Amino acid sequence: MSIILGIDPGSRITGYGVIQQRGKNIQYLGSGCIRLGDVPLAERLINIFRGISELIQQFQPDLFAIEQVFLAHNPDSALKLGQARGAAIVAAANTGLDVAEYSARQIKQAVVGKGSADKKQVQHMVTHILKLTASPQADAADALAVALCHAHTRQSLISMAGQASKTVRGRLR
Amino acid sequence: MSIILGIDPGSRITGYGVIQQRGKNIQYLGSGCIRLGDVPLAERLINIFRGISELIQQFQPDLFAIEQVFLAHNPDSALKLGQARGAAIVAAANTGLDVAEYSARQIKQAVVGKGSADKKQVQHMVTHILKLTASPQADAADALAVALCHAHTRQSLISMAGQASKTVRGRLR
Repeated sequence: MSIILGIDPGSRITGYGVIQQRGKNIQYLGSGCIRLGDVPLAERLINIFRGISELIQQFQPDLFAIEQVFLAHNPDSALKLGQARGAAIVAAANTGLDVAEYSARQIKQAVVGKGSADKKQVQHMVTHILKLTASPQADAADALAVALCHAHTRQSLISMAGQASKTVRGRLR
Repeated sequence: MSIILGIDPGSRITGYGVIQQRGKNIQYLGSGCIRLGDVPLAERLINIFRGISELIQQFQPDLFAIEQVFLAHNPDSALKLGQARGAAIVAAANTGLDVAEYSARQIKQAVVGKGSADKKQVQHMVTHILKLTASPQADAADALAVALCHAHTRQSLISMAGQASKTVRGRLR
């Protein structure tokens, strides 16, 4: 059995999602957002760091997964996102957790079955796979998607959700 | 009396500089580099976080200053630099230290007397102001320059070094 904490870092909102994996069985444990507010940078980053440290304390995950980022434009957003990501990764690594990174493409491929899926489709599949009664908020859904991607490095989530698809490749780490 | 820790964050090398300020008297306490090595991202970031946490433990600074970054190009370097910055700021904020940010222009203005000074000039003036026998390594010199900038928000460093200059404005935070 493993507990996986997925994080979708952002400079305004950082989403988190926690799932439990026992073989093919996956269970939703929790998800939500750390809202950083309109406060100075250091305060925003420490909110991410402390928020994630508290989640680790609360859920005792064995695995930590975070979205890898590739930004084609705008160095300013890249810097801000980098700062949020740095604070998040440090929170995990500081407790001795290994950090796994997945690209947006890998995550969509694992959860929806195609690397070019949009946010709505990810949200829909996360809700479906985890048998949630309501769609989680977008950032929380993205974080759950990272956790699900990590849970299924060699196996198609689609087939687990009862929708076998030949387009899903098992090349995820 | 205040002890100031200045940080020049980087994704490969993070420089640090520590000075002690007692009125107009400024004393060099230490400087150096945290070399991050060719290891996975999480390990590099935790090296920054733990390295700075140890410096805070060792020198017990009252003030923490870091270079503000504006990058016109290359979102990829901006992201990497952001991550390093995030880890550094979290280390300081986590111990309750206030975090001050200065632009490269403000730092050069404070230390050299002109915002367009080059690295060599910064290194030279840091060595001169702190009466060092040898030039510190470039990243350590930049970190000492941030600390010096923080020490002199309303006062010209140039005049302290015996080189009064009318070009230095006292508009630094």
